[in-house]
Amino acid sequence: MDFTIPEKMQAILEMIREFMKKEVYPIEPYFLYNKFKEMWPQINARREMVKKMELWAPQMPKEHGGMGLSLVEHALVSEELGRSPLGHLMFNCQAPDAGNMEILAKYSTPEQREKYLVPLVAGKIRSCFSMSEPENAGSNPIELSTTAVKDGKEWVINGHKWYSTAADGSQFAVVMAITNPEASPYQRASMIIVPTDTPGFNLIRNISMMGHAGDDYSSHGEIMYENCRVPLTNLLGPEGNGFVIAQDRLGPGRIHHCMRWMGVCNRSFEMMCRRASERKIGKKYLADKQIIQAWIAESRADIHAARLMILHAAWKIETEGLYAAREEISLIKFFVAPIMQKVIDRAIQVHGGLGVSDDTVLSYFARAERPARIYDGADEVHKSVVAKRIMRDYPSPQ
Amino acid sequence: MDFTIPEKMQAILEMIREFMKKEVYPIEPYFLYNKFKEMWPQINARREMVKKMELWAPQMPKEHGGMGLSLVEHALVSEELGRSPLGHLMFNCQAPDAGNMEILAKYSTPEQREKYLVPLVAGKIRSCFSMSEPENAGSNPIELSTTAVKDGKEWVINGHKWYSTAADGSQFAVVMAITNPEASPYQRASMIIVPTDTPGFNLIRNISMMGHAGDDYSSHGEIMYENCRVPLTNLLGPEGNGFVIAQDRLGPGRIHHCMRWMGVCNRSFEMMCRRASERKIGKKYLADKQIIQAWIAESRADIHAARLMILHAAWKIETEGLYAAREEISLIKFFVAPIMQKVIDRAIQVHGGLGVSDDTVLSYFARAERPARIYDGADEVHKSVVAKRIMRDYPSPQ
Amino acid sequence: MDFTIPEKMQAILEMIREFMKKEVYPIEPYFLYNKFKEMWPQINARREMVKKMELWAPQMPKEHGGMGLSLVEHALVSEELGRSPLGHLMFNCQAPDAGNMEILAKYSTPEQREKYLVPLVAGKIRSCFSMSEPENAGSNPIELSTTAVKDGKEWVINGHKWYSTAADGSQFAVVMAITNPEASPYQRASMIIVPTDTPGFNLIRNISMMGHAGDDYSSHGEIMYENCRVPLTNLLGPEGNGFVIAQDRLGPGRIHHCMRWMGVCNRSFEMMCRRASERKIGKKYLADKQIIQAWIAESRADIHAARLMILHAAWKIETEGLYAAREEISLIKFFVAPIMQKVIDRAIQVHGGLGVSDDTVLSYFARAERPARIYDGADEVHKSVVAKRIMRDYPSPQ
Amino acid sequence: MDFTIPEKMQAILEMIREFMKKEVYPIEPYFLYNKFKEMWPQINARREMVKKMELWAPQMPKEHGGMGLSLVEHALVSEELGRSPLGHLMFNCQAPDAGNMEILAKYSTPEQREKYLVPLVAGKIRSCFSMSEPENAGSNPIELSTTAVKDGKEWVINGHKWYSTAADGSQFAVVMAITNPEASPYQRASMIIVPTDTPGFNLIRNISMMGHAGDDYSSHGEIMYENCRVPLTNLLGPEGNGFVIAQDRLGPGRIHHCMRWMGVCNRSFEMMCRRASERKIGKKYLADKQIIQAWIAESRADIHAARLMILHAAWKIETEGLYAAREEISLIKFFVAPIMQKVIDRAIQVHGGLGVSDDTVLSYFARAERPARIYDGADEVHKSVVAKRIMRDYPSPQ
Repeated sequence: MDFTIPEKMQAILEMIREFMKKEVYPIEPYFLYNKFKEMWPQINARREMVKKMELWAPQMPKEHGGMGLSLVEHALVSEELGRSPLGHLMFNCQAPDAGNMEILAKYSTPEQREKYLVPLVAGKIRSCFSMSEPENAGSNPIELSTTAVKDGKEWVINGHKWYSTAADGSQFAVVMAITNPEASPYQRASMIIVPTDTPGFNLIRNISMMGHAGDDYSSHGEIMYENCRVPLTNLLGPEGNGFVIAQDRLGPGRIHHCMRWMGVCNRSFEMMCRRASERKIGKKYLADKQIIQAWIAESRADIHAARLMILHAAWKIETEGLYAAREEISLIKFFVAPIMQKVIDRAIQVHGGLGVSDDTVLSYFARAERPARIYDGADEVHKSVVAKRIMRDYPSPQ
Repeated sequence: MDFTIPEKMQAILEMIREFMKKEVYPIEPYFLYNKFKEMWPQINARREMVKKMELWAPQMPKEHGGMGLSLVEHALVSEELGRSPLGHLMFNCQAPDAGNMEILAKYSTPEQREKYLVPLVAGKIRSCFSMSEPENAGSNPIELSTTAVKDGKEWVINGHKWYSTAADGSQFAVVMAITNPEASPYQRASMIIVPTDTPGFNLIRNISMMGHAGDDYSSHGEIMYENCRVPLTNLLGPEGNGFVIAQDRLGPGRIHHCMRWMGVCNRSFEMMCRRASERKIGKKYLADKQIIQAWIAESRADIHAARLMILHAAWKIETEGLYAAREEISLIKFFVAPIMQKVIDRAIQVHGGLGVSDDTVLSYFARAERPARIYDGADEVHKSVVAKRIMRDYPSPQ
Repeated sequence: MDFTIPEKMQAILEMIREFMKKEVYPIEPYFLYNKFKEMWPQINARREMVKKMELWAPQMPKEHGGMGLSLVEHALVSEELGRSPLGHLMFNCQAPDAGNMEILAKYSTPEQREKYLVPLVAGKIRSCFSMSEPENAGSNPIELSTTAVKDGKEWVINGHKWYSTAADGSQFAVVMAITNPEASPYQRASMIIVPTDTPGFNLIRNISMMGHAGDDYSSHGEIMYENCRVPLTNLLGPEGNGFVIAQDRLGPGRIHHCMRWMGVCNRSFEMMCRRASERKIGKKYLADKQIIQAWIAESRADIHAARLMILHAAWKIETEGLYAAREEISLIKFFVAPIMQKVIDRAIQVHGGLGVSDDTVLSYFARAERPARIYDGADEVHKSVVAKRIMRDYPSPQ
Repeated sequence: MDFTIPEKMQAILEMIREFMKKEVYPIEPYFLYNKFKEMWPQINARREMVKKMELWAPQMPKEHGGMGLSLVEHALVSEELGRSPLGHLMFNCQAPDAGNMEILAKYSTPEQREKYLVPLVAGKIRSCFSMSEPENAGSNPIELSTTAVKDGKEWVINGHKWYSTAADGSQFAVVMAITNPEASPYQRASMIIVPTDTPGFNLIRNISMMGHAGDDYSSHGEIMYENCRVPLTNLLGPEGNGFVIAQDRLGPGRIHHCMRWMGVCNRSFEMMCRRASERKIGKKYLADKQIIQAWIAESRADIHAARLMILHAAWKIETEGLYAAREEISLIKFFVAPIMQKVIDRAIQVHGGLGVSDDTVLSYFARAERPARIYDGADEVHKSVVAKRIMRDYPSPQ
């Protein structure tokens, strides 16, 4: 058993930390108070720096133009980037593009690769992932109403999707739709690439979420697909393989997400400590109060525990594969999200009136990360799934 | 011991419930998506209805133009109104005006009464309460930096206030300022009425809170008082009486707040139940799931317990006075706020993606009510205060 | 709404408090370290005092030799008595006898009354209630395996019961058994009186619970009924009425239990406060520590909330009847038991090594009251039951 | 980063698991119901088997007659042994002997080694550790009242100790006493070896803890040292080194303890799962209930997180030393103990009436492990200690 982080990785992480401090945190206030669309000049300038530092697209294999980090290595990177809502975007490993890059790298045809993957990795275009539907429980990717029917050389897509993150401003969507309604449940759906300028791709609105509709990259789209036609060649991977691809996307995505949450936790934790050291109540600082001390200690323990669990899950995926690691992948989902929520909430409480204001990033974290306990399957669903898997070792009498 | 609600009150509550359903809930979506200032025509139309129903200003004595309800009675009204962010406003018993009406009714001179209280009760003007300061802990009303110095026939006020709720659009502020710095701590401050068009009253901004700066009534002002001069006659109550008036305002205010929170809880609870009955996961409804059932049962128990505690505190204030009831007033603060937060959070979780959207009022509740654990003294402070009072019966050895 | 406790009751409660301090607490250490059987001389001496004080059997109507207190009044008495494991026994209102007295008073024939109820109320004999079975979930009183079959003029009882509290030393048991297996589920069982010296009534053991088998009144019996024959006239109430009688016993019993738990809470809370005032850590007392203060304040709030809920439920039973109050009766079950467990646990923690020792009553409370979350239906079951009842107002679509 | 357990260790762990199932679990019921003293023939027979399997004293270096496992390796062993209250004893790595062996191995003179360490490692004698005092907070090893004064060639020891685990039947105690009252706080105490047959060593009682005084190895002694005289040569390590030795003992001891707790968790968890698979409520098994599923999943996650944290702390002690790992050592104390308590409690709840009986080991776990949150410093103290260390990086303004 060895918990060492290799020196090479430590050096990379240190570079990233410096970059975050100098280049990313300072533009956060702008992000908190303005249209996202107006930030692109600032973002692009920093993206160029990242490219020069050779830290671009850390999660992608080198042959695709990335750093080629392992899952565990990128997990550590994701932790640093997660400290700011803008971190991942600067390095081109932001959701949902990172996940789309992964499945394109694995499943795309040479033409798809050229047309979608190459510019995506280069940071020239953006994309979205169109799976969740308002009428169906998001926790179950086999419950879908959206259909794609073959008509000549085209798929004709109809359906209602929402929470297609960052759809606004995206050049294409990867859409999950029922293509084989007669097949067994897990083989009914396929993934199809849909350029967003296709007629019938209707971005109805950016869903106002926790008070903000947002715009551009910082948004969640509601989309009506109405007789939306794309060539049959836009199918990504084999027909009927939608569920498999979704799972492929989900496992490593869970690691990225959870380590991003660690970044949120670390940032919030440090802000809480700093505020506790500066705020006086009577003659004492908040840091002298035992309840605040307990919050600090418990948060440290919780974050530490969560971090080890995520890294262990990443290591297991790497060494034994996604299937062997499915319990660990479920565990971190419902273990880590509530910890993040608690740490953010405590940091806000320690900041008092300042904490609920938008003068710090904490209130943004509280709002933007609340869905963590919902998306990719509500925590409650994952608990039942894990338990059922465990209980296979304890069969009930017939 | 008797928990009966008299029939007269039951009839009033039933009228209010009907009014809320017919007139208030339907305009909530407008409130969630638009400038507040644009809502006044809708609000004023409904305020006229309320006046005609003779339910106007329920908390105010009849001689001031209100319904003259007792504290317990108004608590029950507040519970019904709290079900919507717009409820209290329709009946002219909204914070911070209601509290200002109370202290004006108790302390104002005949001229002040005529100029400020009469139009306030009539709903012709609005007001704000300017106590919290960014540099001082809000939990301790004796820690203030704002000063009011006599200069001839005027007070000259200087200081920095924030979270002066609804300052935007108010005609006057009640400002708490140090007037007697040499006095004992609890006799240093006074309350002074400051018309908001006074030079030196500078509303710097509406603080962006949990993602929204808001506007007009729905806002929290940051105010710089810079050599702001008002006549000496604008003093409210005796000089040095600021702390006493603040406490006078706080006790019944706590009851109003907490019962408003009950309204938030009841509304969220009902939405949770309804959603649980309608949302299918596989072949079952959410309501069939044991975890959801536990949330429903636990929420019901928590709300029921909180409600009894608040009504008991109100009853004790009425029968034994504020001083005798100060433990109960502290208890409900830290007992009820976390229950509200938990109930809202569970309702959101049951709604899934819909819950974090602004298509329901739940996300608004989650954001707007988060400060409940902070304002009027953080919960942690109240716990220490209560404990120290209890421990007077258990003196440590010398 | 009126939370006043009448002066007459206040005087009674004060008498009881004095008695508990002078006569009951001092013999607790003996109870904690010795056989129960050896305590009867001490108990009986005190029982005589209680009779002289005219506080005997407070829950029983005067015509049966009790004080004739109302449910709410006895609830307040039960709170005082619950402060010691020996309290109720001194006043002859201890479980399971008190419940048996109630159902005997309601359902017994004149002969049964003479033979069982009269000496029971007089405190000359003891009894047990034999319902729970090891093979069936105790939460559901209609799932029973024990049978009573008519054979000539006798019932022949066969079955396996456990947790028949205080069976050891009892003169009779009230046994719930299936008498009408073909009837609808709720009409299958009957209650039958079985003298414990009947052949076939086999007290196998006192179940060792949380480390102690105990003896005599302080025990939980496991009983095998093997061809146990009693006269048909030993049937209590109508045939097939077992479930109804069990429910009759349960409602007020829940109030008694919960208020007894309040007594446990109050005692533990006071011990926690006292210890916090006396124990020094470095230069400070535990009471000066903010976490301890939070425990004190939160415990006070929790106990206060629980108490109001129980009293409200008792009031509702009295004014509207058991059926109308069934939600409230369920709510207090799962709301109060965890509060008791938490308060005891915190008191132990504040006492440190002393708290886990048997030098105080706290460790006894922790062990003896752990089953509170299990008996009379596990808390989890009650939550589902309450939720299902609530959800009748929110029917799912067909 | 590598979480692999080497094959050699896996083989050892498998051997231990088999041994536990075949030889240890079957004699647990005897342990739960009888005097410990009567168990020695059964224990010694099994100890011989362990010696033959060459798994004896796994934590001790080979030169002392042990297996020479590393800290991480022994942690894994301790996890397996912890599954039964009898596990460690069979392998001669039970507290408090294991800790005494460690400090004797590090600090003893050749004579001490021969007289105390050799027979201790051989399993021929037992020992106890006499540090905690009833009048002083156990969390602070520098607050001691017991003194040892030099008188000629002897130490004269006076003081009052308690919770000297397993003192009953021990051949010697290691006593921590103030020898240098004028020195700086951390250099005032020394460790002294006291044979238990020394006049003035008075074992007053086995403290009745959570209902049981116990006996022999399974007990916690209260000891009065009254002019207890031992030769000066019984000093263990340098004079004034008591605190240092206590810390030396504590670090690895924490790992052993925490991994033992993991064993308790694993066992309880498995019992919970098995019971859930077998117990029917109506037509469903407990395992089909969503709340039980949530308990299973959450318990798995908690245990997994705790385990990784402990192993990481052990790894850090091994690679960077005790001083560098002191935060991690504190973290696991307060993180793991409540998890253990929660897992045991849930397992009991799932077992219902059976869970609170002594027919399973669960009730024993609940009682015997409750002190985990108290001994070696209450969790609350550790939280403050951790927080203060963290806050050194966030200095308050002067």
